[in-house]
Amino acid sequence: MKERLYLFDTTLRDGAQMPGVDFTLPDKLRVTELLDSLGIDYIEAGYPGANPTDTSLFSEKRNTKAKFTAFGMTKRPGRSASNDPGLATVINAKAADAICLVAKSSAFQVKVALETTPEENLNSIRESVKAAKDTGREVLIDCEHFFDGYKEDSKFALSCAKAAYDSGARWVVLCDTNGGTLPHEVEEIVGEVVKLIPGTHVGIHAHNDTEQAVANSLAAVRAGARQIQGTLNGVGERCGNANLCSIIPTLLLKPEFSEKFETGVKDDALKNLARVSHTLDDMLNRAPDRHAPYVGEAAFTTKTGIHASAILKNPKTYEHVTPESVGNWRKLLVSEQSGKSNVLAELERIGIQVDKDDERVSRVLEAVKERESKGYSYEGADASFALLARRILGKVPQFFDVTQFDVNVEQRINAKGERVTVSMAVVKVTVGEEKLISAGEGNGPVNALDVALRKDLGKYQPLIKDLQLTDYRVRILDGGTGAVTRVLIESMDETGDRWTTIGVSPNIIDASFQALIDSITWKLLKSSAPV
Amino acid sequence: MKERLYLFDTTLRDGAQMPGVDFTLPDKLRVTELLDSLGIDYIEAGYPGANPTDTSLFSEKRNTKAKFTAFGMTKRPGRSASNDPGLATVINAKAADAICLVAKSSAFQVKVALETTPEENLNSIRESVKAAKDTGREVLIDCEHFFDGYKEDSKFALSCAKAAYDSGARWVVLCDTNGGTLPHEVEEIVGEVVKLIPGTHVGIHAHNDTEQAVANSLAAVRAGARQIQGTLNGVGERCGNANLCSIIPTLLLKPEFSEKFETGVKDDALKNLARVSHTLDDMLNRAPDRHAPYVGEAAFTTKTGIHASAILKNPKTYEHVTPESVGNWRKLLVSEQSGKSNVLAELERIGIQVDKDDERVSRVLEAVKERESKGYSYEGADASFALLARRILGKVPQFFDVTQFDVNVEQRINAKGERVTVSMAVVKVTVGEEKLISAGEGNGPVNALDVALRKDLGKYQPLIKDLQLTDYRVRILDGGTGAVTRVLIESMDETGDRWTTIGVSPNIIDASFQALIDSITWKLLKSSAPV
Repeated sequence: MKERLYLFDTTLRDGAQMPGVDFTLPDKLRVTELLDSLGIDYIEAGYPGANPTDTSLFSEKRNTKAKFTAFGMTKRPGRSASNDPGLATVINAKAADAICLVAKSSAFQVKVALETTPEENLNSIRESVKAAKDTGREVLIDCEHFFDGYKEDSKFALSCAKAAYDSGARWVVLCDTNGGTLPHEVEEIVGEVVKLIPGTHVGIHAHNDTEQAVANSLAAVRAGARQIQGTLNGVGERCGNANLCSIIPTLLLKPEFSEKFETGVKDDALKNLARVSHTLDDMLNRAPDRHAPYVGEAAFTTKTGIHASAILKNPKTYEHVTPESVGNWRKLLVSEQSGKSNVLAELERIGIQVDKDDERVSRVLEAVKERESKGYSYEGADASFALLARRILGKVPQFFDVTQFDVNVEQRINAKGERVTVSMAVVKVTVGEEKLISAGEGNGPVNALDVALRKDLGKYQPLIKDLQLTDYRVRILDGGTGAVTRVLIESMDETGDRWTTIGVSPNIIDASFQALIDSITWKLLKSSAPV
Repeated sequence: MKERLYLFDTTLRDGAQMPGVDFTLPDKLRVTELLDSLGIDYIEAGYPGANPTDTSLFSEKRNTKAKFTAFGMTKRPGRSASNDPGLATVINAKAADAICLVAKSSAFQVKVALETTPEENLNSIRESVKAAKDTGREVLIDCEHFFDGYKEDSKFALSCAKAAYDSGARWVVLCDTNGGTLPHEVEEIVGEVVKLIPGTHVGIHAHNDTEQAVANSLAAVRAGARQIQGTLNGVGERCGNANLCSIIPTLLLKPEFSEKFETGVKDDALKNLARVSHTLDDMLNRAPDRHAPYVGEAAFTTKTGIHASAILKNPKTYEHVTPESVGNWRKLLVSEQSGKSNVLAELERIGIQVDKDDERVSRVLEAVKERESKGYSYEGADASFALLARRILGKVPQFFDVTQFDVNVEQRINAKGERVTVSMAVVKVTVGEEKLISAGEGNGPVNALDVALRKDLGKYQPLIKDLQLTDYRVRILDGGTGAVTRVLIESMDETGDRWTTIGVSPNIIDASFQALIDSITWKLLKSSAPV
């Protein structure tokens, strides 16, 4: 019989402390769905009363499988629990299945930050737990600064944890608030705590300030804690919280843990982990970390030729788990350093069968190397790579030809004294025998060009009707406004397919133009013949 | 007496396996200088013979304090060491003070990847160490796949390590090549190794595939290993190598390690760590990870108002080490979530003294919140924040006014049949009573606008002569070419000062224009009066 480990996600609460992270109400509901589909046990979704978003989030029941959890603070010193309006708002929040209250557990913090006495702090814990329990919810206490507090005054820290447990808290969560505790210290201190409180009631909440939040969380489990708190992609203040996207696969895929424990996340749900991770980044408009363990685009990417050929013999040679288990995939990089085996594997992945001795395979490799030396990067631009390869294999028709374009941005002060900016573009296109000219206006120059370009492609127009640009990224390769610009455009269509194309030029308009042309060409190719 | 721990950096060798990382010869020399100034013991700089850059890097003596180390492979099965041209190139490389050779130590790998026998592999280790030692260099053996190998067949793995040591290798380095080993396994296995080989001859080489490379490295040290291999910022294939920028401060600042060990990196050099980390990112043209432990811009940034006010009482409340010890600084974020204490602290940091009850402090906070809700982000744009604050405090003269601009990009096919793109801009400026009009041509539209704008600012022209744009970054806030664009421009001048300005608009040209105007205004402010 395996022991149950509980997963507590705080992406929507502690994760939202990260600079640049700002969830709207629909965002919070969408993340809740993602977490619930994964099988997380607790979703800490916000702090009712602290801001209007969280207040309305908790104003009606949310029907999650997970326990929908409200965060708040234990009652303030000097007030009774019934007389603390902040606490009352949290413990009475309609949507809350569980209440997680933060309490101080360090004597230093109690004195310096809270400016109260140790006794008053213990009293605050007891009264707050009872008041929250009285509403019929499950109660968790986050012992803030627990590990630092333990090192300063272990007796006091333990008394806070014990007070929470004895008053009826379901979970006593040990927080490494400043993130400076080391794994062997966590293991030792959690070992002491579970002598007083059963491990089945002890949780760990780690931060990444020494890059060891994952190790600290797992060390706590090894010492007996049975709840892990963390966030998707490790988002969180400063260096972030413990990254559940790294912890969950380790728990499920490494025998050391999977043979002893089970979690609410099952193997099937794990296959969605990469998608869940990338969806959160999309929502936050952050570029996903390519090198993130398990879920990053490069996590199973091999650049070294000699490793690539070993992987082709047997994937176990250079992979610690299978990429498919977390919804990722193996990638043998086509780059300056790669050999023919990388190109062949990549061609196969995109559905092109070529004999390995076909001399065109070498020509594809040459073309990639030559273009990457100019700043192209095909690692993230699958459709542009496929087009490049298919052109060399003679499989891309010339659908249309842009013979000229002209883009203009003007800013002036209008009659009312307001500064106005106008962007317009004109594009001349040849489609077969037909010569077309279109104009477009847009928010900016690239948008105007895009509008003009897709306005009239003659007979191909019906095929590109459902083409949508979903992302546009710009990277400057050398710094300064005179440097080379790399543009990546992500597109999608009604079928739900997504593809990425690339353009490189010292001129951002030209780079964007190349990526747009590749995107439209790819769409025409996939709509006119199966690719 | 403290024990000596040795640091081995492989940024230039294993780090270069990361997609997108590509060092030129001058790059490699510059990184070598950075590492040498830090006090790293070994700099593994490349693989002579494998590519022209590394071959010329090792063709002449490099006078480093660190041991300049060449990487290569042990001799191939079936050849004698003297008859292996690859090995010969490495062990005879002029610049090499030390030679690090990779050898297999897993029975599975020997069979599947190397396709040879265990005996031949041991023989290859012995002969290669001896051949390298005969050239008078120090020899290190990287035992590839050591931990996986140990778990499959501990006897064979240990026999490989022992063969290396017995043949005279100064260091036997245990590699977690696939990165899947967990910290407690590392601690246990290293504990077994040091029963056979003195820990003062054992090294650890960890990868980050479970997000535990730092923890694995420190676990190995706790078990007795005395050399740590890693890279700056954890660059490396897949999920990267062990991050020396996280390991070094932990070794120097956490008593658990600093009381027992000393390294070649001293406290003074540690103060350069953030700069070294960011310089590497600049060279690789990667955006530094804002959330990197110790060195990231956000590592000591507090967004929560309640934490900010505690930090102002005593920094120890929310900081595990002092930011200054690693060359970073404390930042109380001015953002939507911040309170007046954050604004006051930030104003003070940029040298503006205001009374805390001055009602203009609240107006600065309001202005920041209002603009951040439109997409501005002052966290990274110090000069734009300072200008915004100073404008509200009434301390910025109106140096000049741009009344109109017009930017044009045209692409057409010229008489020779080549596609040519031309970017031009015209700018109308009023400086005092003077009305000026200038035109500029550039690589792209923003460059053309920049050229035209800085061509003639009348009486202020001499003050902006030494202004240089050093970085230009673009971020699209919602996806799609019609979305809001955020532009950050970094500038510097002859004094070496650097400052960052921001612009936000649906139109990339307009956003760039705003950031340019702020940069020029800041330069005029600092050149006409001390700021």
